[in-house]
Amino acid sequence: MTVSLVRSAAGDADVLFAARVSTAGEASLEELSKDPEKSTGLINYLMRDRHGTPFEHNSMTFLIQAPIFVFREFHRHRAGWSYNEESGRYRELQPVFYTPAPDRKLVQHGRPGKYEFSEGTEAQHQQTVEAMETAYRKCYEAYQEMLAAGIAREVARAVLPVGLFSSMYATCNARSLMHFLSLRTKKENAKVPSFPQREIEMVAEQMEAQWAALMPLTHAAFEKHGRVAP
Amino acid sequence: MTVSLVRSAAGDADVLFAARVSTAGEASLEELSKDPEKSTGLINYLMRDRHGTPFEHNSMTFLIQAPIFVFREFHRHRAGWSYNEESGRYRELQPVFYTPAPDRKLVQHGRPGKYEFSEGTEAQHQQTVEAMETAYRKCYEAYQEMLAAGIAREVARAVLPVGLFSSMYATCNARSLMHFLSLRTKKENAKVPSFPQREIEMVAEQMEAQWAALMPLTHAAFEKHGRVAP
Amino acid sequence: MTVSLVRSAAGDADVLFAARVSTAGEASLEELSKDPEKSTGLINYLMRDRHGTPFEHNSMTFLIQAPIFVFREFHRHRAGWSYNEESGRYRELQPVFYTPAPDRKLVQHGRPGKYEFSEGTEAQHQQTVEAMETAYRKCYEAYQEMLAAGIAREVARAVLPVGLFSSMYATCNARSLMHFLSLRTKKENAKVPSFPQREIEMVAEQMEAQWAALMPLTHAAFEKHGRVAP
Amino acid sequence: MTVSLVRSAAGDADVLFAARVSTAGEASLEELSKDPEKSTGLINYLMRDRHGTPFEHNSMTFLIQAPIFVFREFHRHRAGWSYNEESGRYRELQPVFYTPAPDRKLVQHGRPGKYEFSEGTEAQHQQTVEAMETAYRKCYEAYQEMLAAGIAREVARAVLPVGLFSSMYATCNARSLMHFLSLRTKKENAKVPSFPQREIEMVAEQMEAQWAALMPLTHAAFEKHGRVAP
Repeated sequence: MTVSLVRSAAGDADVLFAARVSTAGEASLEELSKDPEKSTGLINYLMRDRHGTPFEHNSMTFLIQAPIFVFREFHRHRAGWSYNEESGRYRELQPVFYTPAPDRKLVQHGRPGKYEFSEGTEAQHQQTVEAMETAYRKCYEAYQEMLAAGIAREVARAVLPVGLFSSMYATCNARSLMHFLSLRTKKENAKVPSFPQREIEMVAEQMEAQWAALMPLTHAAFEKHGRVAP
Repeated sequence: MTVSLVRSAAGDADVLFAARVSTAGEASLEELSKDPEKSTGLINYLMRDRHGTPFEHNSMTFLIQAPIFVFREFHRHRAGWSYNEESGRYRELQPVFYTPAPDRKLVQHGRPGKYEFSEGTEAQHQQTVEAMETAYRKCYEAYQEMLAAGIAREVARAVLPVGLFSSMYATCNARSLMHFLSLRTKKENAKVPSFPQREIEMVAEQMEAQWAALMPLTHAAFEKHGRVAP
Repeated sequence: MTVSLVRSAAGDADVLFAARVSTAGEASLEELSKDPEKSTGLINYLMRDRHGTPFEHNSMTFLIQAPIFVFREFHRHRAGWSYNEESGRYRELQPVFYTPAPDRKLVQHGRPGKYEFSEGTEAQHQQTVEAMETAYRKCYEAYQEMLAAGIAREVARAVLPVGLFSSMYATCNARSLMHFLSLRTKKENAKVPSFPQREIEMVAEQMEAQWAALMPLTHAAFEKHGRVAP
Repeated sequence: MTVSLVRSAAGDADVLFAARVSTAGEASLEELSKDPEKSTGLINYLMRDRHGTPFEHNSMTFLIQAPIFVFREFHRHRAGWSYNEESGRYRELQPVFYTPAPDRKLVQHGRPGKYEFSEGTEAQHQQTVEAMETAYRKCYEAYQEMLAAGIAREVARAVLPVGLFSSMYATCNARSLMHFLSLRTKKENAKVPSFPQREIEMVAEQMEAQWAALMPLTHAAFEKHGRVAP
């Protein structure tokens, strides 16, 4: 799973000018030079009391490569997100598939909505990887055979598993990203518990790290106030 | 592919009261009894000049069963759409898979974005169905084996192809539905050409028929003005 | 300020079928007959852990009459809301204006973002009402004079104060309504403090009462879990 | 009316990489160096056939000063727009009001939804300006008196006319901006007729000019294909 920030215009200052227009009107841009401590305070106040709109005046585009089952969950995020993805109708898809790394916990316990996971045995891991690789290979062969027989790509792709990697650009702002992170990461300090699938969490963690570098004060406030999107 | 309208509150009158508040304010509900010809005229005017908001004050929920590759396209519609789908994390998925019917055109021509399709030969159709069924069976066996070995459903499902059927509820309003239909159906009288994949079009056609029964004047205006969402 | 529910298709059962599709797939409608206690439990679980989408498959339309300054705040709610409002371009606006009732607290203390209010004196209340009525009358006279002189309504209305009443239809679902209520009401049991202007809160309270009658289990869960929109 | 572009990350190249991910997947960034003629062709194709999403991966923030009646129309644009505005609750508003310039056509003809305007006489213009200035002054005096008497700003502002100037930041992307422009400007070459109020059109024209400088190919394609948002 890879995540690259390919374009952005996002900084803590973008939150500040937007927030200060409430009280300073047309002079809000000049207010930006105010002392940094006050700025930290303002961002924390906005986050804590859930004034969300000042966090929307910024933009980040990520190029993400992940399996289809990750994108299936990803695309359910509607507000403040834009997507363009590789097309199985326009393009012959390449045989790059997901198999769990050795540290992926494979065994689930508990009830829907709050699964806990534990390590599988080495045998379980090996069996999983083998079962996946065999199935992936069979499917991709069937795909290739249909293409060779002149069948349209959009039809032939029906046999490709959701473990297939795809590529997409996803554009968001700090507010929509925080909403995504609050649901797609699992952290001790989160006020609201989330139980994301590990694979989308791996994408989310990379996005969070890159966002935190752009907007450190906003990220710190998000952490401090329990990882709830304002 | 099946589509059932499971709940709705949607009628042409819902467009009329919303539109008439512009000119009649608080008396807009009483205006509803105005003569039907005027109502048809008003709906046509709104559609033609693209006054979209009066078409939003209504609601329809469809229960849809279709392959994952259809839902993948479906979920890209964000504004005015709500979704809840069967979960491969919470539930063991059932082995119901898509194969093209004999009348599905299998061979594509032309460039990306504007493919045309022609009938395949009988041999091509047979080969497609066989290739799919074999691949589906192999994958589902691998899925079952992993589950039997104690692997979590969310991991094991990676091998399931996008031809697997899923179920979802999708809620929309007339405006968001028209936008969907303008992109996901291909019609002679459409002002803007669309080249949807046939399988999502099959879903769209069923939705359109059920919507047209609820809002016949609105549907007629949509047809008359080139199937462009207002 | 008046609020009438003019159309709706909204019930607790709409939350249940949507939530149960995750685990029951195509059988989710049959699951609706499950015992009521389980249903209450499910709705509470969804609310507490912030699974928001099942609360979107329902629809309510309110006809609201309130001053422009209330609608100005109202229209900032974007996701899950549809609006149609009386038009000052299409219609001569009627002279109905807002003045505070005797119980409206008139004096504010504290800092932006968390004002507290206290009663004004009787003299303050009287002065306010008189100042408003005089200003409103002058403005409406100027409006009438311009109209009489042949000036376009859209130009003449520039002099009309934001205390003027307007009418609109607003359509939402339970999720977008809860988000609105969490910001536009001030309650002891709210987990996140809000400081709405009293006038929009008066609208919100009427909407909440009408919604609670339609979806009592959902409303109770909203109350129980701190009035945070899921 | 003033419009300043205060931050942006928007260029024609942002459309190209997003569009090319469909066919080039993970190699879409490298494709950017393709010859310019092909790029123009691609943007025109996307615009004509209404492939909208590639136009969303960019961002522009405008600081806008305009009368409240302009912002009232502006805030009805929901998808792809973020707003933060000066607050009449947090701040004492300044007495800057709108009066029409001599070239503002003051007299309307025709039916709702398609007004045409003609010049007023000099006397009409003079009367309008005088009526407005008198009303504005009276209202602002009432506002000041109430504030002096200790009445809360949020209450006192009820007397302020919608001709009062306010300030806001508005953030959008090329797609949401084109949708706005298609409705809020009136042009000969527009495929769908629009009848915006002149004052919001003045804002729209300034926004369009600043956007066109950032994304000239996209703007040219918008013009060429009838000013319909894709």
